[in-house]
Amino acid sequence: MATVAFIGLGNMGGPMAANLIKAGMTVTVFDLMPAAVDALTAQGALSAKTACGAAASADVVISMLPAGKHVSSLYLGDASNKGLLDVVSKDTLLIDCSTIDAATAQLVGSKAAQKGIEFMDAPVSGGTAGAAAGTLTFICGGTDAAFNKAQTVLTVMGANIFHAGQVGAGQIAKICNNMLLSVLMVGTSESLQLGIDNGLDPKILSDIMKVSSGGNWTLEKYNPCPDVMDNVPSSKGYQGGFMVDLMVKDLGLSQQAALASNSSTPMGALARSLYVNHARQGHGRLDFSSIFEQFSQKK
Amino acid sequence: MATVAFIGLGNMGGPMAANLIKAGMTVTVFDLMPAAVDALTAQGALSAKTACGAAASADVVISMLPAGKHVSSLYLGDASNKGLLDVVSKDTLLIDCSTIDAATAQLVGSKAAQKGIEFMDAPVSGGTAGAAAGTLTFICGGTDAAFNKAQTVLTVMGANIFHAGQVGAGQIAKICNNMLLSVLMVGTSESLQLGIDNGLDPKILSDIMKVSSGGNWTLEKYNPCPDVMDNVPSSKGYQGGFMVDLMVKDLGLSQQAALASNSSTPMGALARSLYVNHARQGHGRLDFSSIFEQFSQKK
Amino acid sequence: MATVAFIGLGNMGGPMAANLIKAGMTVTVFDLMPAAVDALTAQGALSAKTACGAAASADVVISMLPAGKHVSSLYLGDASNKGLLDVVSKDTLLIDCSTIDAATAQLVGSKAAQKGIEFMDAPVSGGTAGAAAGTLTFICGGTDAAFNKAQTVLTVMGANIFHAGQVGAGQIAKICNNMLLSVLMVGTSESLQLGIDNGLDPKILSDIMKVSSGGNWTLEKYNPCPDVMDNVPSSKGYQGGFMVDLMVKDLGLSQQAALASNSSTPMGALARSLYVNHARQGHGRLDFSSIFEQFSQKK
Amino acid sequence: MATVAFIGLGNMGGPMAANLIKAGMTVTVFDLMPAAVDALTAQGALSAKTACGAAASADVVISMLPAGKHVSSLYLGDASNKGLLDVVSKDTLLIDCSTIDAATAQLVGSKAAQKGIEFMDAPVSGGTAGAAAGTLTFICGGTDAAFNKAQTVLTVMGANIFHAGQVGAGQIAKICNNMLLSVLMVGTSESLQLGIDNGLDPKILSDIMKVSSGGNWTLEKYNPCPDVMDNVPSSKGYQGGFMVDLMVKDLGLSQQAALASNSSTPMGALARSLYVNHARQGHGRLDFSSIFEQFSQKK
Repeated sequence: MATVAFIGLGNMGGPMAANLIKAGMTVTVFDLMPAAVDALTAQGALSAKTACGAAASADVVISMLPAGKHVSSLYLGDASNKGLLDVVSKDTLLIDCSTIDAATAQLVGSKAAQKGIEFMDAPVSGGTAGAAAGTLTFICGGTDAAFNKAQTVLTVMGANIFHAGQVGAGQIAKICNNMLLSVLMVGTSESLQLGIDNGLDPKILSDIMKVSSGGNWTLEKYNPCPDVMDNVPSSKGYQGGFMVDLMVKDLGLSQQAALASNSSTPMGALARSLYVNHARQGHGRLDFSSIFEQFSQKK
Repeated sequence: MATVAFIGLGNMGGPMAANLIKAGMTVTVFDLMPAAVDALTAQGALSAKTACGAAASADVVISMLPAGKHVSSLYLGDASNKGLLDVVSKDTLLIDCSTIDAATAQLVGSKAAQKGIEFMDAPVSGGTAGAAAGTLTFICGGTDAAFNKAQTVLTVMGANIFHAGQVGAGQIAKICNNMLLSVLMVGTSESLQLGIDNGLDPKILSDIMKVSSGGNWTLEKYNPCPDVMDNVPSSKGYQGGFMVDLMVKDLGLSQQAALASNSSTPMGALARSLYVNHARQGHGRLDFSSIFEQFSQKK
Repeated sequence: MATVAFIGLGNMGGPMAANLIKAGMTVTVFDLMPAAVDALTAQGALSAKTACGAAASADVVISMLPAGKHVSSLYLGDASNKGLLDVVSKDTLLIDCSTIDAATAQLVGSKAAQKGIEFMDAPVSGGTAGAAAGTLTFICGGTDAAFNKAQTVLTVMGANIFHAGQVGAGQIAKICNNMLLSVLMVGTSESLQLGIDNGLDPKILSDIMKVSSGGNWTLEKYNPCPDVMDNVPSSKGYQGGFMVDLMVKDLGLSQQAALASNSSTPMGALARSLYVNHARQGHGRLDFSSIFEQFSQKK
Repeated sequence: MATVAFIGLGNMGGPMAANLIKAGMTVTVFDLMPAAVDALTAQGALSAKTACGAAASADVVISMLPAGKHVSSLYLGDASNKGLLDVVSKDTLLIDCSTIDAATAQLVGSKAAQKGIEFMDAPVSGGTAGAAAGTLTFICGGTDAAFNKAQTVLTVMGANIFHAGQVGAGQIAKICNNMLLSVLMVGTSESLQLGIDNGLDPKILSDIMKVSSGGNWTLEKYNPCPDVMDNVPSSKGYQGGFMVDLMVKDLGLSQQAALASNSSTPMGALARSLYVNHARQGHGRLDFSSIFEQFSQKK
């Protein structure tokens, strides 16, 4: 049974680590917040005083951090700390599940490769509910060997595990998907409101478009118009779900990639502008389907 | 068995009428082009010298015409001709399958209602292939009575028959759907190209997004990136399918509706601009998935 | 000295008619609101019971109405009233100063031409302040003869009088200008906010861009950022000036023209979407420079 | 008389250095291309074997390089070379005239400040013609002391010298301006084409809008519609001027800044997408006013 080091025990990392423990793995955790560590040790985790300490003897290291700079510090070190690449052995598998810029993933990957260590980026989707249920989607970038070896741990935490390509490809595929998701959400919102403004019942219109050429994930699972679908954020005051601020973060990553590759993404760029405006009007903590309210008449 | 008058025997109307004949109905046809009429009489249709002549004794009248002005002339008449509303009996059911502006559909519908005649707008999707195979989708606007009575003829020509609401609702629902489709197509194209520009294989990226939150009809049925999917226009030089010029027409109708209802459709309006630019660069007769080429690097 | 009939005495029409009276002309007025008529007769106008009555014996007819349907009814008549074209003599000059769709202007113009009557569209800019001061801008569409003859009255009410082309050209030129204005306003707003977000003083940035290649009318006369410029709406809580709702109307007219000519206007269409969203959030009666607030962080 | 080191002798840097020589200054130059160095020594410059050698004894160092990474290497050094900050004395004034990301300018500035050395970013506009004529515009970021001291050299090379704020502010102000310029250019292009499509003469429409609320720099100096204005790129097959590829670079910098500050720039982002598409269709080396051709009908 693999021994795992888990670094970063936030809303996502905490339940992910818990699932590994439940599966009987030996998990050593680290987080800057003592309370987050305590919650995991109470479930059977070991703890370490530093990230390097947790990782030193693990077969697999998993990290789940907020942004590229944290990932870079963790693996490459910084002014005050060694990086994981300085302490782990060559047969350790490093898996970063954070959603960050592809450039940082590729930098860490190439530094790891220089030392003969396997590194894989494996950003997730599925939210905190998926993390708790062990039904996350992982989109992985790395070698075939790394991808195969990672199955042991990833299948415990997730239901869908994709191999997008080499290191960095996981990040790219995820932000391509999330950029497209934002376009689906905005496009569906404005189409539904156009129908409503012209006298249509949004439920009927949704039913028609769902099985027609306008069909898309948001109509299927996450209708943005209140009271069309039960148990989705739009029918609960846009609470819960995937926050506008997080969509703004992912759209920022997609635009960063588009700048780096000199790509044109007019719809994704427009979606980002609309979501930033929405956040700046004070709606950053609502679910991202609340963009619907930009199109409806304020009561 | 119903007697049917069919007015407008173009690429869509011709095969639709043919399916009614095959089903054993008595069909009287009219078109301004003699060759189009001849093709149908050869299959067993009767013909009439005028649209009014065809319609006068029919149980059901079906029209399939290019634009609102033709529909208006047909039903309401013009300087030189009577309209169908002047000649048909009260128990005739009028079904217009053209894709036109909702305002014209509503005008014809209200004039018909004043005379006690049932009128329904029932625009189709599915293209010439669907017309020939009898697998069209009909999106209907009209009373329940009209909708129920229309089943006899619509089920012969189509596989999916939706009731969107009152007269005009069929047109609105169709253009909402097609506007959304254009957004899916552009958004999917730019997302795939962003992936390609960053080293991803478009087939793998498509497979991932298709079953993730970016999933949509274009990934499922109509991938715009060449050689990802067999037997779609993108793998055949963007020939066949649904022409850019027709998408421009439908996006024009959606913007006309948005102006009338003072609605905001930023994605749909942007898609229209990109499609008009694409058409103006000389690509109006390519399939609408060719918008992908606006994002890829010209070789 | 010309005798003038003035139809439509609203916020703009009232002061325009008053200036003609002050210049010593014989002005017969008509409006559906008795109070509006009384205000002008108190200043020396004659009044008539109907628009046709006012126009019958005038050398020049000037109209200032809200929308195309009113202009159409006035000149062409409707179910209950004759139109001006039925009552005026051939040597009457008809000038419509309303801002309406070009198609209606062209329809009225062609009907007038069939009767040998000169009709000119002459939409204005300059607002109620310009109307009162007699410093409006007129953008005219009509023959050279009509344009020359109109100078007598237009120079009394305005400071800049342009001849854009044949009938309808005045409307087209005005909505091209106002569409461009909306783009300048949004573009300037987001550029200033980008500077502010990166630590720049908006006054300094405005001073630099004003004399550089970013220079435009909004930086010169109408800075949207509060407290950069004195005596503009942005420094007075976005009160006064040109309302968001009116910009939405003009952007609707520009999109109507773009649909009719199958033109692509991505920036203008996007500006319209942003302004409609702004209006729907409850800001329709603020000055149009308040679009700046869509980009700034809500406090 | 100041002694100057000039690093980077490309299309812009070469003529800028030449103007300093003509003004009687002692100029020591460096460039990786020997031919570029030779061209300047032929005009009286001294040369050095390295950038550090050129800078070591200068009162003022001026650099003109393609991108942030070159500026970073020059001032901060890299794996194989010392940086200028390692060799110059505290009373040397460092002026970087490159157009780069503000973050790099701020990084170099803060490293310089740590050593007590004045650094100023001073990106230019005005093109190669302005560089040759000594009429460039400089937009400077730095302390008042640095700005004042820089006048001696900047006034020799430029006609307009702005002080935008602290270090980095020059870059921000320049990209705000250039982003706004791109919006003016696209907005003006689509407005003119909308007028043309509706029968207007673009010259007359330009004349009207230029003095109305649509007035902007492009109508004044750089009309994008062929044959409206003499001696501009649009009337010379879009040759010369400011290349599409350079506008794409500047729009990339503006979007980089917008991502860093979490700002929304819908018009600027859309302009970038349209310019990238235009470049990818093979027009990257045309003047940036050629975006007009995206809106006109291809002949």
